[in-house]
Amino acid sequence: MVVSAPSGAGKTTLCKRLLRHDARIEFSVSFTTRPRRPGERDGVDYRFVDRKEFERLRRGGEFVEWASVGENLYGTSVSAVQEASRDGREVLLDLDTQGAASVRKLFPDAVLIFIMPPDRKALEERLEKRATDTPREVARRLALARGEVEKSPGYDYVIVNEDLDTAYRQLRGIVEAERCRTARQKGRLAAILREFVDRRPHFG
Amino acid sequence: MVVSAPSGAGKTTLCKRLLRHDARIEFSVSFTTRPRRPGERDGVDYRFVDRKEFERLRRGGEFVEWASVGENLYGTSVSAVQEASRDGREVLLDLDTQGAASVRKLFPDAVLIFIMPPDRKALEERLEKRATDTPREVARRLALARGEVEKSPGYDYVIVNEDLDTAYRQLRGIVEAERCRTARQKGRLAAILREFVDRRPHFG
Repeated sequence: MVVSAPSGAGKTTLCKRLLRHDARIEFSVSFTTRPRRPGERDGVDYRFVDRKEFERLRRGGEFVEWASVGENLYGTSVSAVQEASRDGREVLLDLDTQGAASVRKLFPDAVLIFIMPPDRKALEERLEKRATDTPREVARRLALARGEVEKSPGYDYVIVNEDLDTAYRQLRGIVEAERCRTARQKGRLAAILREFVDRRPHFG
Repeated sequence: MVVSAPSGAGKTTLCKRLLRHDARIEFSVSFTTRPRRPGERDGVDYRFVDRKEFERLRRGGEFVEWASVGENLYGTSVSAVQEASRDGREVLLDLDTQGAASVRKLFPDAVLIFIMPPDRKALEERLEKRATDTPREVARRLALARGEVEKSPGYDYVIVNEDLDTAYRQLRGIVEAERCRTARQKGRLAAILREFVDRRPHFG
């Protein structure tokens, strides 16, 4: 499951709430070369590595996607996702649209969810409320947002985040629904089917 | 949205609960020639017509599907579904697997949901608890159930009804998720996209 959104659309809040309430979903922790911030834990928020180690992993084909944001490198471990996928575990990936496209190529049955701000003005306001961002940073994020929003038609689902509780209910709904997809329950359904077919009455 | 299930899987309970709690979903009322039972209302539970009127409608191509159950005929109005589909309204159809297949042909973007009993034994017990059914009727329904269950792999979603509250949460989840499908929100998403694209900075 891949969730993307322009910065300020509410993605982090929604994903954190989902992970807190649903023990079946694991968060895929990215590798990063950026310095650890106060309160962040290695292996939980990110796997903090230096640039040399990051390059070694990248050359080894370890990243399903990697990106450079400013001075820092970010990478998603392909082996971790493959392992989870093989075990039937559910992994949540927080990726930009380019990363999402790479995941779709490697995992065609991935579920791609885009969190959309209701309109440009709402996004502007949300970004401006963030005390940490300078006006220049807000302008930069808005420019990036356009590029991200343009890729939303390639996603399976788009949640227009007008109201956080509604958006969360929709995200939960998508998780519930995807678990009910016939294609995702093959083993279990085959077992039920066999039971109905094998117990048919025998004649003669 | 089409819901199918073998008799006794909990379909009617789940659909009634959904319709009671979600005003956006309409129930598609079937035509029938069977006599009205106490408490049933014409136009709400069924549209009660005589055999002659039913035949007239059928010859006129009015039914997306029709079936004969025992002495009685049942038919789903195609024009009612077409009209709702054109207006973007959500219609819930309660159909057997044959009816569901016909709807899929006429409406390729229909959502097909199958309610599955957790196992054969559970279905047997539920059918036996119904005071209204004779043992012969129970046996007949179980034989029919096998044929229905075998068609479940053709559905988009299968809800294994082990526990009614869980099954209802899953049904609600499917409704929420389908509303978030990118393909079902084209108009709204195009409007948001235009807003982001048109407001890009102009150079020169």
